[in-house]
Amino acid sequence: MDRVNFKNSEIKDTKFGISCSIVKPVNIYSAEIGDKVFIGPFVEIQKGVKIGNNTRIQSHSFICELVTIGENCFIGHGVMFINDLFKNNGPSNGNKSLWSKTEIGRNVSIGSNATILPVKICDEAIIGAGAVVTKDISLPGKYAGNPAVMLKKK
Amino acid sequence: MDRVNFKNSEIKDTKFGISCSIVKPVNIYSAEIGDKVFIGPFVEIQKGVKIGNNTRIQSHSFICELVTIGENCFIGHGVMFINDLFKNNGPSNGNKSLWSKTEIGRNVSIGSNATILPVKICDEAIIGAGAVVTKDISLPGKYAGNPAVMLKKK
Amino acid sequence: MDRVNFKNSEIKDTKFGISCSIVKPVNIYSAEIGDKVFIGPFVEIQKGVKIGNNTRIQSHSFICELVTIGENCFIGHGVMFINDLFKNNGPSNGNKSLWSKTEIGRNVSIGSNATILPVKICDEAIIGAGAVVTKDISLPGKYAGNPAVMLKKK
Repeated sequence: MDRVNFKNSEIKDTKFGISCSIVKPVNIYSAEIGDKVFIGPFVEIQKGVKIGNNTRIQSHSFICELVTIGENCFIGHGVMFINDLFKNNGPSNGNKSLWSKTEIGRNVSIGSNATILPVKICDEAIIGAGAVVTKDISLPGKYAGNPAVMLKKK
Repeated sequence: MDRVNFKNSEIKDTKFGISCSIVKPVNIYSAEIGDKVFIGPFVEIQKGVKIGNNTRIQSHSFICELVTIGENCFIGHGVMFINDLFKNNGPSNGNKSLWSKTEIGRNVSIGSNATILPVKICDEAIIGAGAVVTKDISLPGKYAGNPAVMLKKK
Repeated sequence: MDRVNFKNSEIKDTKFGISCSIVKPVNIYSAEIGDKVFIGPFVEIQKGVKIGNNTRIQSHSFICELVTIGENCFIGHGVMFINDLFKNNGPSNGNKSLWSKTEIGRNVSIGSNATILPVKICDEAIIGAGAVVTKDISLPGKYAGNPAVMLKKK
């Protein structure tokens, strides 16, 4: 195995506000984390991600580059964010001009095992567990399903 | 990073029966685990969870408070349980009177990446991989889809 | 807890080609990994799995026995493979004659949180995030949904 380059999950080059809590192991690099943010175990957060104050990121979630999450959000367990839509019939292989961004507003709740394509989700939206969000959500309310549709207006 | 409170995933205050096997890292606290239970890596099990004898919990799964799992069950990989239905248009923020419980019977098999809302699932039920179970299941059989529906009666 | 048998996630009895990269913790045993393969954190890869050159396995994925993945593939985050279809109304409990195999071709891209039942997926196929693939895919194109259907022919 001497031909394998090993790294360890770690927290690197990341700014934290006050009173954050993190349960290791996590892999977090070059992100900006607000005040009083909770991050559960087995979480990966990539470069440039911004997370607002009081937001909680539960275990097993993955937050990729180009994702911004507002204040007071709840990101459930096993939630996966996406920035690469395989536009050229495959992965962008590091060509970031092909990536798309995700903006999550304030007071957004995302249920466990949800999958979030690169979209904008408005303040106060609620995404059900297991939902696959493929389009922007601009009205507060409850959304679920694959693809996610509105179940109930707020 | 001195303003961050770090914890490590660990096994704490948990009762185990005989002959259990666990692959670390896992984060398990204040649970009750029966005899001959297997728990794979990257699993989180929260306070008060009860798991019956001979049940197997595969890697990447998350079992939250208020979940009870019977004997001889198979919980696949990446299965997420839920206790908070965002009843008040958002997370309960520790107000447990808003949480709901889940009861899994005996000989229940749950496929990988399934999402289990707070429901009762009867003995002998089979939940397909990737299913999102949103309602009680009271008849043995095979269930799949988002939301899960019966595919085949036993 | 002295009645519990603990193991640690590790890399064991696995062949690697040249220039692979791995982010620990991972649990990988008795697999065959090609050249220039990337494996992210919180990944489990089981016995007998074969992974082709230049393929990338992202964080949180689980690759079970009887899975073969070709060259130049992208396996997203939280992707779960399956070999046990609960044919006898429950898990096979180690009776591998009841398991089924999965063959992933070359240049296949699988989106995050996808679930892959035991199937064949042809070269150049693209599986959307959150998809549940229940049948063989023999035409290149984009597939998504639960169960996955073709969205667009290549």
